Amino acid sequence: MTLTPSDLTAIIRQGVPASEGSGFLVETVEAGGVLCRLPFNPQQIRPGGTLSGPTMMTLADAAMYAAVMAQLGRLEMAVTQSFNINFLSRPAQADLLARAEILKLGRRTVVLDVKIFSEGSPVVVAHATGTYSLPPAGRE
Amino acid sequence: MTLTPSDLTAIIRQGVPASEGSGFLVETVEAGGVLCRLPFNPQQIRPGGTLSGPTMMTLADAAMYAAVMAQLGRLEMAVTQSFNINFLSRPAQADLLARAEILKLGRRTVVLDVKIFSEGSPVVVAHATGTYSLPPAGRE
Amino acid sequence: MTLTPSDLTAIIRQGVPASEGSGFLVETVEAGGVLCRLPFNPQQIRPGGTLSGPTMMTLADAAMYAAVMAQLGRLEMAVTQSFNINFLSRPAQADLLARAEILKLGRRTVVLDVKIFSEGSPVVVAHATGTYSLPPAGRE
Amino acid sequence: MTLTPSDLTAIIRQGVPASEGSGFLVETVEAGGVLCRLPFNPQQIRPGGTLSGPTMMTLADAAMYAAVMAQLGRLEMAVTQSFNINFLSRPAQADLLARAEILKLGRRTVVLDVKIFSEGSPVVVAHATGTYSLPPAGRE
Repeated sequence: MTLTPSDLTAIIRQGVPASEGSGFLVETVEAGGVLCRLPFNPQQIRPGGTLSGPTMMTLADAAMYAAVMAQLGRLEMAVTQSFNINFLSRPAQADLLARAEILKLGRRTVVLDVKIFSEGSPVVVAHATGTYSLPPAGRE
Repeated sequence: MTLTPSDLTAIIRQGVPASEGSGFLVETVEAGGVLCRLPFNPQQIRPGGTLSGPTMMTLADAAMYAAVMAQLGRLEMAVTQSFNINFLSRPAQADLLARAEILKLGRRTVVLDVKIFSEGSPVVVAHATGTYSLPPAGRE
Repeated sequence: MTLTPSDLTAIIRQGVPASEGSGFLVETVEAGGVLCRLPFNPQQIRPGGTLSGPTMMTLADAAMYAAVMAQLGRLEMAVTQSFNINFLSRPAQADLLARAEILKLGRRTVVLDVKIFSEGSPVVVAHATGTYSLPPAGRE
Repeated sequence: MTLTPSDLTAIIRQGVPASEGSGFLVETVEAGGVLCRLPFNPQQIRPGGTLSGPTMMTLADAAMYAAVMAQLGRLEMAVTQSFNINFLSRPAQADLLARAEILKLGRRTVVLDVKIFSEGSPVVVAHATGTYSLPPAGRE
Protein backbone atom coordinates (compact mmCIF):
# COMPACT_ATOMS: atom_id res chain seq x y z
CA MET A 1 0.00 0.00 0.00
CA THR A 2 1.38 3.34 -1.03
CA LEU A 3 1.62 5.99 1.65
CA THR A 4 0.27 9.43 0.78
CA PRO A 5 2.00 12.68 1.76
CA SER A 6 -0.40 13.07 4.67
CA ASP A 7 0.19 9.48 5.85
CA LEU A 8 3.93 10.15 5.82
CA THR A 9 3.49 13.47 7.63
CA ALA A 10 1.50 11.78 10.37
CA ILE A 11 3.95 8.89 10.83
CA ILE A 12 6.92 11.24 11.06
CA ARG A 13 5.30 13.73 13.40
CA GLN A 14 4.48 10.84 15.69
CA GLY A 15 7.81 9.02 15.41
CA VAL A 16 10.31 11.90 15.39
CA PRO A 17 9.39 14.03 18.36
CA ALA A 18 11.64 16.89 17.25
CA SER A 19 9.46 17.36 14.16
CA GLU A 20 6.25 17.53 16.12
CA GLY A 21 5.01 21.03 16.69
CA SER A 22 7.36 22.36 14.03
CA GLY A 23 4.70 22.20 11.33
CA PHE A 24 6.88 19.81 9.28
CA LEU A 25 5.02 18.22 6.41
CA VAL A 26 5.59 16.03 3.40
CA GLU A 27 4.29 17.98 0.42
CA THR A 28 4.65 15.61 -2.50
CA VAL A 29 5.88 12.11 -3.25
CA GLU A 30 8.03 12.09 -6.37
CA ALA A 31 9.79 9.34 -8.33
CA GLY A 32 12.54 8.18 -5.98
CA GLY A 33 12.00 10.88 -3.41
CA VAL A 34 9.87 13.42 -1.59
CA LEU A 35 9.54 17.16 -1.18
CA CYS A 36 9.02 18.39 2.40
CA ARG A 37 8.30 21.75 3.99
CA LEU A 38 9.25 23.34 7.29
CA PRO A 39 7.19 26.49 7.89
CA PHE A 40 9.14 29.60 8.84
CA ASN A 41 9.20 30.17 12.58
CA PRO A 42 10.77 33.40 13.86
CA GLN A 43 11.51 31.68 17.18
CA GLN A 44 14.02 29.42 15.40
CA ILE A 45 16.20 32.36 14.38
CA ARG A 46 19.63 32.49 15.96
CA PRO A 47 21.66 35.62 16.68
CA GLY A 48 22.76 37.07 13.35
CA GLY A 49 19.52 36.13 11.67
CA THR A 50 20.40 32.57 10.74
CA LEU A 51 18.63 29.31 11.47
CA SER A 52 20.29 26.87 13.85
CA GLY A 53 22.11 23.94 12.34
CA PRO A 54 19.99 21.37 14.20
CA THR A 55 16.82 22.81 12.67
CA MET A 56 18.11 21.95 9.22
CA MET A 57 19.59 18.61 10.35
CA THR A 58 16.21 17.62 11.76
CA LEU A 59 14.47 18.65 8.54
CA ALA A 60 16.96 16.73 6.37
CA ASP A 61 16.72 13.60 8.50
CA ALA A 62 12.91 13.68 8.47
CA ALA A 63 12.89 14.15 4.69
CA MET A 64 15.14 11.09 4.30
CA TYR A 65 12.89 9.04 6.54
CA ALA A 66 9.85 10.13 4.48
CA ALA A 67 11.61 9.15 1.23
CA VAL A 68 12.46 5.70 2.63
CA MET A 69 8.85 5.06 3.63
CA ALA A 70 7.44 6.52 0.41
CA GLN A 71 9.46 3.85 -1.38
CA LEU A 72 9.20 0.88 0.97
CA GLY A 73 6.05 1.47 3.02
CA ARG A 74 5.66 1.95 6.75
CA LEU A 75 9.01 1.01 8.28
CA GLU A 76 9.14 2.50 11.72
CA MET A 77 12.22 0.50 12.61
CA ALA A 78 14.32 2.10 9.87
CA VAL A 79 16.94 4.23 11.62
CA THR A 80 19.62 6.70 10.59
CA GLN A 81 23.00 5.00 10.44
CA SER A 82 25.14 7.89 9.27
CA PHE A 83 24.44 11.49 8.33
CA ASN A 84 26.54 14.25 6.79
CA ILE A 85 25.57 17.86 6.14
CA ASN A 86 27.22 20.94 4.67
CA PHE A 87 25.72 24.36 5.38
CA LEU A 88 26.11 26.52 2.31
CA SER A 89 24.20 29.81 2.58
CA ARG A 90 22.18 31.62 5.12
CA PRO A 91 18.51 30.77 4.49
CA ALA A 92 16.01 33.52 3.84
CA GLN A 93 13.30 34.27 6.41
CA ALA A 94 10.89 31.99 4.60
CA ASP A 95 9.65 28.40 4.65
CA LEU A 96 12.34 25.80 4.01
CA LEU A 97 11.83 23.15 1.33
CA ALA A 98 13.77 19.89 1.46
CA ARG A 99 13.99 17.55 -1.51
CA ALA A 100 15.18 14.05 -0.56
CA GLU A 101 16.24 11.63 -3.29
CA ILE A 102 17.21 7.98 -3.00
CA LEU A 103 20.71 7.41 -4.39
CA LYS A 104 20.84 3.70 -3.58
CA LEU A 105 18.12 1.30 -2.51
CA GLY A 106 19.83 -1.74 -1.06
CA ARG A 107 18.54 -4.71 0.90
CA ARG A 108 20.06 -3.50 4.13
CA THR A 109 20.53 0.21 3.62
CA VAL A 110 19.15 3.17 1.71
CA VAL A 111 21.49 6.04 0.82
CA LEU A 112 19.90 9.43 0.26
CA ASP A 113 20.72 12.97 -0.72
CA VAL A 114 18.80 16.04 0.53
CA LYS A 115 18.93 19.57 -0.79
CA ILE A 116 17.38 22.34 1.31
CA PHE A 117 16.14 25.59 -0.24
CA SER A 118 14.37 28.69 1.01
CA GLU A 119 10.97 28.93 -0.65
CA GLY A 120 11.15 31.22 -3.66
CA SER A 121 14.90 30.83 -4.22
CA PRO A 122 16.85 28.25 -6.24
CA VAL A 123 19.95 28.53 -4.00
CA VAL A 124 20.79 25.38 -2.04
CA VAL A 125 21.22 26.47 1.59
CA ALA A 126 22.26 23.04 2.93
CA HIS A 127 23.14 19.71 1.36
CA ALA A 128 22.96 16.45 3.30
CA THR A 129 23.65 12.81 2.58
CA GLY A 130 22.73 9.94 4.83
CA THR A 131 22.28 6.22 5.19
CA TYR A 132 19.20 4.62 6.67
CA SER A 133 19.52 1.10 8.01
CA LEU A 134 16.55 -1.16 7.21
CA PRO A 135 15.21 -3.72 9.64
CA PRO A 136 15.85 -7.33 8.60
CA ALA A 137 12.87 -8.47 6.50
CA GLY A 138 10.16 -10.21 8.48
CA ARG A 139 11.50 -9.01 11.80
CA GLU A 140 9.36 -5.92 12.10
CA MET B 1 36.77 36.29 30.46
CA THR B 2 36.28 32.59 30.85
CA LEU B 3 32.74 31.30 30.54
CA THR B 4 31.54 28.94 33.23
CA PRO B 5 29.44 25.86 32.53
CA SER B 6 26.33 27.75 33.56
CA ASP B 7 27.20 30.72 31.32
CA LEU B 8 27.59 28.33 28.41
CA THR B 9 24.34 26.56 29.23
CA ALA B 10 22.47 29.86 29.25
CA ILE B 11 23.98 31.10 25.96
CA ILE B 12 23.18 27.84 24.19
CA ARG B 13 19.66 27.50 25.51
CA GLN B 14 19.00 31.00 24.27
CA GLY B 15 20.77 30.70 20.93
CA VAL B 16 19.82 27.19 19.81
CA PRO B 17 16.07 27.01 20.18
CA ALA B 18 16.00 23.23 19.70
CA SER B 19 17.98 22.83 22.94
CA GLU B 20 15.62 24.97 24.97
CA GLY B 21 13.17 22.99 27.01
CA SER B 22 15.24 19.85 26.56
CA GLY B 23 17.11 20.34 29.82
CA PHE B 24 20.43 20.42 27.93
CA LEU B 25 23.30 21.60 30.10
CA VAL B 26 27.05 22.00 30.02
CA GLU B 27 28.37 20.04 32.98
CA THR B 28 32.09 20.71 32.99
CA VAL B 29 34.67 22.61 31.01
CA GLU B 30 37.75 20.44 30.41
CA ALA B 31 41.09 21.07 28.72
CA GLY B 32 40.21 21.46 25.04
CA GLY B 33 36.59 20.52 25.45
CA VAL B 34 33.39 20.19 27.43
CA LEU B 35 31.12 17.52 28.87
CA CYS B 36 27.39 18.08 28.33
CA ARG B 37 24.23 16.33 29.52
CA LEU B 38 20.83 15.77 27.96
CA PRO B 39 18.37 14.49 30.58
CA PHE B 40 16.39 11.40 29.66
CA ASN B 41 12.95 12.22 28.34
CA PRO B 42 10.56 9.34 27.65
CA GLN B 43 8.76 11.52 25.09
CA GLN B 44 11.84 11.45 22.86
CA ILE B 45 11.65 7.66 22.45
CA ARG B 46 10.90 6.42 18.95
CA PRO B 47 9.12 3.18 18.06
CA GLY B 48 11.43 0.31 18.96
CA GLY B 49 12.72 2.08 22.05
CA THR B 50 15.43 4.13 20.40
CA LEU B 51 16.09 7.86 20.45
CA SER B 52 15.59 9.81 17.25
CA GLY B 53 18.67 10.69 15.26
CA PRO B 54 17.97 14.44 15.41
CA THR B 55 17.95 14.34 19.22
CA MET B 56 21.56 13.16 19.17
CA MET B 57 22.52 15.47 16.31
CA THR B 58 21.18 18.43 18.27
CA LEU B 59 23.07 17.34 21.37
CA ALA B 60 26.33 16.86 19.44
CA ASP B 61 26.03 20.22 17.70
CA ALA B 62 25.29 22.03 20.98
CA ALA B 63 28.26 20.32 22.65
CA MET B 64 30.53 21.50 19.81
CA TYR B 65 29.24 25.03 20.12
CA ALA B 66 29.86 24.94 23.87
CA ALA B 67 33.42 23.71 23.33
CA VAL B 68 34.10 26.52 20.84
CA MET B 69 32.89 29.16 23.28
CA ALA B 70 34.63 27.55 26.26
CA GLN B 71 37.85 28.05 24.30
CA LEU B 72 37.28 31.36 22.56
CA GLY B 73 34.66 33.18 24.62
CA ARG B 74 31.20 34.31 23.66
CA LEU B 75 30.99 33.93 19.89
CA GLU B 76 27.36 33.91 18.95
CA MET B 77 28.17 34.28 15.28
CA ALA B 78 30.09 31.01 15.14
CA VAL B 79 28.06 28.63 12.98
CA THR B 80 28.22 24.99 11.98
CA GLN B 81 29.84 24.62 8.57
CA SER B 82 29.80 20.85 8.23
CA PHE B 83 28.69 18.00 10.48
CA ASN B 84 29.02 14.23 10.27
CA ILE B 85 27.60 11.61 12.64
CA ASN B 86 27.63 7.83 12.91
CA PHE B 87 25.05 6.12 15.10
CA LEU B 88 26.66 3.13 16.76
CA SER B 89 24.45 1.56 19.43
CA ARG B 90 21.00 2.03 20.77
CA PRO B 91 21.27 4.29 23.82
CA ALA B 92 19.98 3.13 27.17
CA GLN B 93 16.92 4.78 28.71
CA ALA B 94 19.14 7.14 30.67
CA ASP B 95 20.64 10.62 30.44
CA LEU B 96 22.97 11.12 27.49
CA LEU B 97 26.45 12.52 28.05
CA ALA B 98 28.33 14.20 25.20
CA ARG B 99 32.04 14.91 25.36
CA ALA B 100 33.21 17.42 22.75
CA GLU B 101 36.91 17.85 22.07
CA ILE B 102 38.65 20.36 19.84
CA LEU B 103 40.77 18.60 17.21
CA LYS B 104 41.93 21.76 15.48
CA LEU B 105 41.71 25.38 16.51
CA GLY B 106 42.30 27.47 13.41
CA ARG B 107 41.88 31.15 12.71
CA ARG B 108 38.82 30.59 10.54
CA THR B 109 37.49 27.23 11.65
CA VAL B 110 37.40 24.89 14.63
CA VAL B 111 37.18 21.13 14.01
CA LEU B 112 35.68 19.04 16.78
CA ASP B 113 34.91 15.49 17.73
CA VAL B 114 31.98 14.44 19.94
CA LYS B 115 31.37 11.10 21.61
CA ILE B 116 27.94 10.42 23.07
CA PHE B 117 27.39 7.90 25.88
CA SER B 118 24.47 6.77 27.99
CA GLU B 119 25.11 7.67 31.61
CA GLY B 120 26.58 4.71 33.45
CA SER B 121 27.95 2.96 30.35
CA PRO B 122 31.30 3.33 28.59
CA VAL B 123 29.85 2.36 25.18
CA VAL B 124 29.90 5.13 22.58
CA VAL B 125 26.36 5.35 21.16
CA ALA B 126 27.13 8.01 18.54
CA HIS B 127 30.27 9.67 17.24
CA ALA B 128 30.21 13.02 15.47
CA THR B 129 32.75 15.32 13.88
CA GLY B 130 32.09 18.84 12.77
CA THR B 131 33.53 22.14 11.69
CA TYR B 132 32.49 25.46 13.15
CA SER B 133 33.16 28.58 11.10
CA LEU B 134 34.38 31.54 13.13
CA PRO B 135 33.32 35.11 12.42
CA PRO B 136 36.10 37.30 10.99
CA ALA B 137 37.88 38.93 13.94
CA GLY B 138 36.54 42.32 14.86
CA ARG B 139 33.36 41.90 12.88
CA GLU B 140 31.21 40.56 15.67
CA MET C 1 42.49 33.38 -18.12
CA THR C 2 40.28 30.38 -18.43
CA LEU C 3 41.92 27.00 -18.05
CA THR C 4 41.10 24.41 -20.69
CA PRO C 5 40.46 20.74 -19.92
CA SER C 6 44.00 19.90 -20.96
CA ASP C 7 45.48 22.69 -18.78
CA LEU C 8 43.54 21.32 -15.83
CA THR C 9 44.61 17.75 -16.58
CA ALA C 10 48.26 18.80 -16.65
CA ILE C 11 48.07 20.81 -13.40
CA ILE C 12 46.38 17.95 -11.55
CA ARG C 13 48.64 15.22 -12.85
CA GLN C 14 51.58 17.29 -11.68
CA GLY C 15 50.12 18.38 -8.34
CA VAL C 16 48.36 15.23 -7.17
CA PRO C 17 50.92 12.47 -7.49
CA ALA C 18 48.33 9.74 -6.95
CA SER C 19 46.61 10.77 -10.19
CA GLU C 20 49.78 10.61 -12.24
CA GLY C 21 50.13 7.44 -14.21
CA SER C 22 46.46 6.64 -13.71
CA GLY C 23 45.44 8.23 -17.00
CA PHE C 24 43.14 10.67 -15.13
CA LEU C 25 41.90 13.47 -17.34
CA VAL C 26 39.49 16.38 -17.30
CA GLU C 27 37.16 15.84 -20.25
CA THR C 28 34.98 18.93 -20.30
CA VAL C 29 34.45 22.12 -18.38
CA GLU C 30 30.75 22.74 -17.76
CA ALA C 31 28.81 25.56 -16.12
CA GLY C 32 29.74 25.29 -12.44
CA GLY C 33 31.67 22.08 -12.79
CA VAL C 34 33.72 19.56 -14.74
CA LEU C 35 33.46 16.05 -16.12
CA CYS C 36 36.52 13.84 -15.55
CA ARG C 37 37.54 10.37 -16.67
CA LEU C 38 39.60 7.61 -15.09
CA PRO C 39 40.44 4.93 -17.65
CA PHE C 40 39.70 1.35 -16.65
CA ASN C 41 42.76 -0.44 -15.31
CA PRO C 42 42.46 -4.16 -14.56
CA GLN C 43 45.29 -3.82 -12.03
CA GLN C 44 43.04 -1.67 -9.83
CA ILE C 45 40.54 -4.49 -9.35
CA ARG C 46 40.23 -5.85 -5.81
CA PRO C 47 39.25 -9.40 -4.86
CA GLY C 48 35.58 -9.84 -5.71
CA GLY C 49 35.89 -7.74 -8.84
CA THR C 50 35.38 -4.33 -7.27
CA LEU C 51 37.51 -1.20 -7.38
CA SER C 52 39.24 -0.10 -4.22
CA GLY C 53 37.69 2.72 -2.26
CA PRO C 54 40.81 4.92 -2.49
CA THR C 55 40.71 4.76 -6.30
CA MET C 56 37.31 6.43 -6.26
CA MET C 57 38.26 8.83 -3.44
CA THR C 58 41.27 9.96 -5.45
CA LEU C 59 39.14 10.44 -8.55
CA ALA C 60 36.49 12.41 -6.63
CA ASP C 61 39.06 14.64 -4.96
CA ALA C 62 40.82 15.35 -8.25
CA ALA C 63 37.51 16.17 -9.93
CA MET C 64 36.73 18.66 -7.13
CA TYR C 65 40.12 20.27 -7.49
CA ALA C 66 39.59 20.56 -11.25
CA ALA C 67 36.18 22.19 -10.72
CA VAL C 68 37.66 24.72 -8.28
CA MET C 69 40.37 25.72 -10.76
CA ALA C 70 37.98 25.74 -13.73
CA GLN C 71 36.04 28.37 -11.81
CA LEU C 72 38.78 30.38 -10.12
CA GLY C 73 41.91 29.81 -12.19
CA ARG C 74 45.18 28.20 -11.23
CA LEU C 75 45.10 27.86 -7.45
CA GLU C 76 47.68 25.34 -6.48
CA MET C 77 47.39 26.24 -2.81
CA ALA C 78 43.73 25.24 -2.63
CA VAL C 79 43.53 22.16 -0.41
CA THR C 80 40.88 19.70 0.64
CA GLN C 81 39.48 20.63 4.05
CA SER C 82 36.87 17.91 4.46
CA PHE C 83 35.67 15.05 2.28
CA ASN C 84 32.79 12.59 2.57
CA ILE C 85 31.95 9.70 0.26
CA ASN C 86 29.30 7.01 0.06
CA PHE C 87 29.92 3.93 -2.08
CA LEU C 88 26.66 2.88 -3.68
CA SER C 89 27.13 0.16 -6.30
CA ARG C 90 29.93 -1.95 -7.63
CA PRO C 91 31.28 -0.21 -10.73
CA ALA C 92 31.38 -2.03 -14.04
CA GLN C 93 34.70 -3.01 -15.59
CA ALA C 94 34.76 0.21 -17.61
CA ASP C 95 36.12 3.74 -17.45
CA LEU C 96 34.82 5.80 -14.54
CA LEU C 97 33.31 9.22 -15.15
CA ALA C 98 33.15 11.80 -12.35
CA ARG C 99 30.99 14.89 -12.56
CA ALA C 100 31.93 17.57 -10.01
CA GLU C 101 29.59 20.48 -9.37
CA ILE C 102 30.12 23.53 -7.20
CA LEU C 103 27.40 23.81 -4.56
CA LYS C 104 28.78 26.91 -2.90
CA LEU C 105 31.47 29.31 -4.01
CA GLY C 106 32.52 31.27 -0.96
CA ARG C 107 35.40 33.62 -0.31
CA ARG C 108 37.21 31.14 1.90
CA THR C 109 35.81 27.78 0.86
CA VAL C 110 34.21 26.00 -2.07
CA VAL C 111 31.75 23.17 -1.38
CA LEU C 112 31.34 20.56 -4.10
CA ASP C 113 29.41 17.46 -4.96
CA VAL C 114 30.74 14.62 -7.14
CA LYS C 115 28.83 11.77 -8.73
CA ILE C 116 30.81 8.85 -10.15
CA PHE C 117 29.41 6.61 -12.91
CA SER C 118 30.70 3.71 -14.96
CA GLU C 119 30.84 4.74 -18.61
CA GLY C 120 27.73 3.60 -20.40
CA SER C 121 25.53 3.38 -17.29
CA PRO C 122 23.41 6.02 -15.57
CA VAL C 123 23.80 4.39 -12.11
CA VAL C 124 25.72 6.47 -9.56
CA VAL C 125 28.41 4.17 -8.12
CA ALA C 126 29.73 6.66 -5.57
CA HIS C 127 28.66 10.07 -4.32
CA ALA C 128 31.06 12.46 -2.62
CA THR C 129 30.85 15.92 -1.09
CA GLY C 130 33.80 18.00 -0.05
CA THR C 131 35.08 21.39 0.95
CA TYR C 132 38.15 23.00 -0.56
CA SER C 133 39.85 25.72 1.41
CA LEU C 134 41.03 28.67 -0.68
CA PRO C 135 44.28 30.50 -0.02
CA PRO C 136 43.81 34.03 1.32
CA ALA C 137 43.64 36.38 -1.67
CA GLY C 138 46.96 37.91 -2.60
CA ARG C 139 48.92 35.55 -0.43
CA GLU C 140 49.59 32.91 -3.06
CA MET D 1 43.77 -17.66 13.38
CA THR D 2 45.05 -14.27 14.32
CA LEU D 3 46.69 -12.25 11.58
CA THR D 4 50.06 -10.72 12.40
CA PRO D 5 51.08 -7.23 11.34
CA SER D 6 53.06 -8.69 8.46
CA ASP D 7 50.12 -10.87 7.33
CA LEU D 8 47.92 -7.76 7.31
CA THR D 9 50.53 -5.74 5.44
CA ALA D 10 50.76 -8.40 2.74
CA ILE D 11 46.99 -8.76 2.32
CA ILE D 12 46.51 -5.01 2.02
CA ARG D 13 49.38 -4.40 -0.35
CA GLN D 14 47.93 -7.09 -2.58
CA GLY D 15 44.28 -6.06 -2.28
CA VAL D 16 44.52 -2.26 -2.34
CA PRO D 17 46.63 -1.44 -5.37
CA ALA D 18 47.03 2.19 -4.34
CA SER D 19 48.94 1.08 -1.23
CA GLU D 20 51.35 -1.09 -3.17
CA GLY D 21 54.66 0.53 -3.79
CA SER D 22 53.94 3.17 -1.17
CA GLY D 23 55.74 1.26 1.56
CA PHE D 24 52.53 1.12 3.64
CA LEU D 25 52.78 -1.27 6.55
CA VAL D 26 50.85 -2.37 9.60
CA GLU D 27 53.17 -1.82 12.54
CA THR D 28 51.28 -3.20 15.51
CA VAL D 29 47.96 -4.81 16.32
CA GLU D 30 46.43 -3.26 19.44
CA ALA D 31 43.28 -3.94 21.42
CA GLY D 32 40.47 -2.91 19.07
CA GLY D 33 42.72 -1.42 16.45
CA VAL D 34 46.00 -1.13 14.59
CA LEU D 35 48.86 1.31 14.12
CA CYS D 36 50.05 1.73 10.52
CA ARG D 37 52.91 3.59 8.87
CA LEU D 38 53.32 5.33 5.54
CA PRO D 39 56.99 6.14 4.88
CA PHE D 40 57.77 9.70 3.87
CA ASN D 41 58.11 10.09 0.12
CA PRO D 42 59.25 13.46 -1.22
CA GLN D 43 57.50 12.70 -4.53
CA GLN D 44 54.13 12.86 -2.74
CA ILE D 45 54.64 16.50 -1.79
CA ARG D 46 52.25 18.98 -3.41
CA PRO D 47 53.01 22.62 -4.21
CA GLY D 48 53.25 24.48 -0.91
CA GLY D 49 54.91 21.54 0.81
CA THR D 50 51.79 19.66 1.81
CA LEU D 51 50.77 16.07 1.15
CA SER D 52 47.87 15.45 -1.20
CA GLY D 53 44.52 14.67 0.35
CA PRO D 54 44.22 11.31 -1.44
CA THR D 55 47.50 10.14 0.09
CA MET D 56 45.99 10.50 3.55
CA MET D 57 42.59 9.13 2.48
CA THR D 58 44.32 6.02 1.11
CA LEU D 59 46.31 5.61 4.32
CA ALA D 60 43.20 6.04 6.51
CA ASP D 61 41.17 3.58 4.44
CA ALA D 62 43.94 0.98 4.50
CA ALA D 63 44.32 1.38 8.28
CA MET D 64 40.57 0.78 8.72
CA TYR D 65 40.73 -2.31 6.55
CA ALA D 66 43.67 -3.61 8.59
CA ALA D 67 41.76 -3.02 11.84
CA VAL D 68 38.73 -4.92 10.51
CA MET D 69 40.85 -7.92 9.56
CA ALA D 70 42.91 -7.79 12.77
CA GLN D 71 39.60 -8.24 14.58
CA LEU D 72 37.70 -10.62 12.29
CA GLY D 73 40.35 -12.43 10.25
CA ARG D 74 40.94 -12.44 6.53
CA LEU D 75 37.88 -10.80 4.97
CA GLU D 76 38.81 -9.73 1.51
CA MET D 77 35.19 -9.01 0.62
CA ALA D 78 34.82 -6.34 3.30
CA VAL D 79 34.43 -3.01 1.51
CA THR D 80 34.25 0.64 2.46
CA GLN D 81 30.65 1.78 2.63
CA SER D 82 31.14 5.38 3.72
CA PHE D 83 34.16 7.48 4.60
CA ASN D 84 34.60 10.95 6.06
CA ILE D 85 37.83 12.86 6.66
CA ASN D 86 38.82 16.24 8.04
CA PHE D 87 42.26 17.63 7.27
CA LEU D 88 43.54 19.50 10.30
CA SER D 89 47.19 20.50 9.98
CA ARG D 90 49.89 20.33 7.40
CA PRO D 91 51.91 17.18 8.08
CA ALA D 92 55.63 17.41 8.70
CA GLN D 93 58.08 16.00 6.17
CA ALA D 94 58.22 12.71 8.05
CA ASP D 95 56.59 9.28 8.06
CA LEU D 96 52.85 9.33 8.73
CA LEU D 97 51.39 7.13 11.46
CA ALA D 98 47.72 6.16 11.40
CA ARG D 99 45.95 4.70 14.40
CA ALA D 100 42.64 3.00 13.51
CA GLU D 101 40.21 2.07 16.29
CA ILE D 102 36.97 0.15 16.04
CA LEU D 103 34.08 2.21 17.42
CA LYS D 104 31.38 -0.36 16.68
CA LEU D 105 31.65 -4.00 15.68
CA GLY D 106 28.27 -5.01 14.27
CA ARG D 107 27.14 -8.08 12.39
CA ARG D 108 26.84 -6.21 9.11
CA THR D 109 29.11 -3.21 9.53
CA VAL D 110 32.17 -2.03 11.41
CA VAL D 111 32.52 1.68 12.23
CA LEU D 112 36.03 3.00 12.74
CA ASP D 113 37.93 6.12 13.64
CA VAL D 114 41.43 6.94 12.35
CA LYS D 115 43.83 9.58 13.59
CA ILE D 116 46.85 10.43 11.45
CA PHE D 117 50.03 11.91 12.95
CA SER D 118 53.45 12.86 11.65
CA GLU D 119 56.05 10.70 13.33
CA GLY D 120 57.54 12.52 16.29
CA SER D 121 54.59 14.88 16.83
CA PRO D 122 51.41 14.44 18.88
CA VAL D 123 49.38 16.76 16.62
CA VAL D 124 46.56 15.05 14.70
CA VAL D 125 46.99 16.06 11.05
CA ALA D 126 43.85 14.31 9.78
CA HIS D 127 40.89 12.58 11.40
CA ALA D 128 38.73 10.09 9.53
CA THR D 129 35.70 7.99 10.33
CA GLY D 130 34.33 5.25 8.13
CA THR D 131 32.05 2.26 7.85
CA TYR D 132 33.12 -1.07 6.42
CA SER D 133 30.42 -3.39 5.15
CA LEU D 134 30.98 -7.04 6.01
CA PRO D 135 30.13 -9.87 3.63
CA PRO D 136 27.16 -11.98 4.71
CA ALA D 137 28.49 -14.83 6.86
CA GLY D 138 29.21 -17.99 4.92
CA ARG D 139 29.17 -16.25 1.58
CA GLU D 140 32.86 -15.53 1.35
